[in-house]
Amino acid sequence: MDEFSLIQRFFSASDVNEHKNGVILGIGDDAAILKAAKDEELLITTDTLISAVHFPQDTDPAAIGHKSLAVNLSDIAAMGGQARWFTLALSLPESNEAWLKSFSEGLLALAKLFKVRLVGGDTTRGPLSITITVLGSVPEGTAIRRSGARPGDVIFTTGYAGMAALGLAAVKGFLSLSDADQSTFQNKLDYPQPRLLEGQFLRGYATSMIDISDGLAADLGHILDASGCGALIDSERLTNWQPATPAFSNKMILEAALYGGDDYELLFTVPADKSLLLENNWQQQFPALNRIGEITQGAGLIMRETRGKLMKKPTTGYNHFCD
Amino acid sequence: MDEFSLIQRFFSASDVNEHKNGVILGIGDDAAILKAAKDEELLITTDTLISAVHFPQDTDPAAIGHKSLAVNLSDIAAMGGQARWFTLALSLPESNEAWLKSFSEGLLALAKLFKVRLVGGDTTRGPLSITITVLGSVPEGTAIRRSGARPGDVIFTTGYAGMAALGLAAVKGFLSLSDADQSTFQNKLDYPQPRLLEGQFLRGYATSMIDISDGLAADLGHILDASGCGALIDSERLTNWQPATPAFSNKMILEAALYGGDDYELLFTVPADKSLLLENNWQQQFPALNRIGEITQGAGLIMRETRGKLMKKPTTGYNHFCD
Repeated sequence: MDEFSLIQRFFSASDVNEHKNGVILGIGDDAAILKAAKDEELLITTDTLISAVHFPQDTDPAAIGHKSLAVNLSDIAAMGGQARWFTLALSLPESNEAWLKSFSEGLLALAKLFKVRLVGGDTTRGPLSITITVLGSVPEGTAIRRSGARPGDVIFTTGYAGMAALGLAAVKGFLSLSDADQSTFQNKLDYPQPRLLEGQFLRGYATSMIDISDGLAADLGHILDASGCGALIDSERLTNWQPATPAFSNKMILEAALYGGDDYELLFTVPADKSLLLENNWQQQFPALNRIGEITQGAGLIMRETRGKLMKKPTTGYNHFCD
Repeated sequence: MDEFSLIQRFFSASDVNEHKNGVILGIGDDAAILKAAKDEELLITTDTLISAVHFPQDTDPAAIGHKSLAVNLSDIAAMGGQARWFTLALSLPESNEAWLKSFSEGLLALAKLFKVRLVGGDTTRGPLSITITVLGSVPEGTAIRRSGARPGDVIFTTGYAGMAALGLAAVKGFLSLSDADQSTFQNKLDYPQPRLLEGQFLRGYATSMIDISDGLAADLGHILDASGCGALIDSERLTNWQPATPAFSNKMILEAALYGGDDYELLFTVPADKSLLLENNWQQQFPALNRIGEITQGAGLIMRETRGKLMKKPTTGYNHFCD
């Protein structure tokens, strides 16, 4: 059985296809046929993962499958959307049944969790590369853009930034971690959880939103550029999570949070007068809300350090962990 | 200027973005926002082209750009759809301004011609590979599937199959062509014309449709499998175009048509009682209609040869030209 038949076997048997979800005709014709509801707007995003560029070559194929879809779902989450459909373009150097089985299991488990349906694909022989395009939807006019932040808005993240970068640094042998941190951080790196439910919950609260893929500083920078504002953030809000590994300096955690990337947490702004309501209503099953600062007039990113000293921080910068 | 800025420059300046076409928010946020009309169904398809697999490494980058989009538009055409939006995932080994300029010009000229808008993209460093996902639309319930052929239906193609395969054989040095044929066939190979207007015209006529990408036999085979029918085709209808190169045998042309692929012409079936009406109404600017045979009861593909002899033909087979 060649890899194309294998893929068909792994992907067509999937439970993912149990959810109708607007699919009129699935895989198997020249194109799939989809139907959006009349009061919906569609969201579309595409991301490629390439071996040795986006993940180490010996990464568990289940993690590659998961992450390929997760990074795209995270973009839909960052618009406040529901993920609906996706296409998969897979380039493979050779047929490898074990690899494909594991890859498809990782990918389809995540697809099933969020009821997002595979509706098209292309498989080619070539260097290992995965391109996924996801379509999502939002009720008309409710998508959360990067451009809506206003001075006075409070800046939040879901959970904490920096763990994935520390995990990658450890995988690369640049850092030595306690067993507990190693497991937690590598899990953050390999199995990022797209914050789709959180993103949908934030419709009606957030004025702007983005997912943290390039590092908090760069991604906040995108919001500031699009919104024409600045930001003041508190360094201690970025370092208020406690790695189990001793000898972690706050400076190292701060660098990982600001410039590490690969977190796939949501970064968003909320008007000050809605921020308490949000904190009260934030669902228990969601990751902790982290209030990290506020939007200011003027441009750029200012950080308030522990003793109150203000430091201008670049929103682009050398990525110390992921080179 | 790095390749990412270059790409942004080449693609964002494009005239393609003049057409609103249901785009509420284009490139630049986590996802684009699109709106389909309420009586529309959406079509989605994805295809990857990899250097040295889908095109020789020294192919003109403008042709690569054109073809990457054309093969996807052809899938939308084969459903009877209008192409609306596309995403581009481009993996490039190095920054090369001249290459990118030519690639984007080839791609965007075709996008502009059919008013299809670029709404998302991802650029990564890696082996040269292009994955495009196209979204199209049809009025509700009018998409033309592979499964609707019925015994008695007439089988047509737009234009003729086989030229692209002969062009590729010449590029690879397996064939020597006259200058005129070389130019015509290589143009068919490098600049396939997606038959979008023809496909839309065929709504209301065609009972089934596919585009010829793998060779007429294989693609007709997909219609037969999906529809549960057989087909009888006339060999002389596949060889009734006249290459300028002397010494072309009908056998060689027939092999190219049946098993060559890369033609991106439409192959479709029409009820016998509508076929004359179709031939009368077929637009002058469209490529010639070629009536090649009819759908039969039973399975498989039978070819009627010049002297009336019937031959069973495989619908899958070794591709004599493209390996």
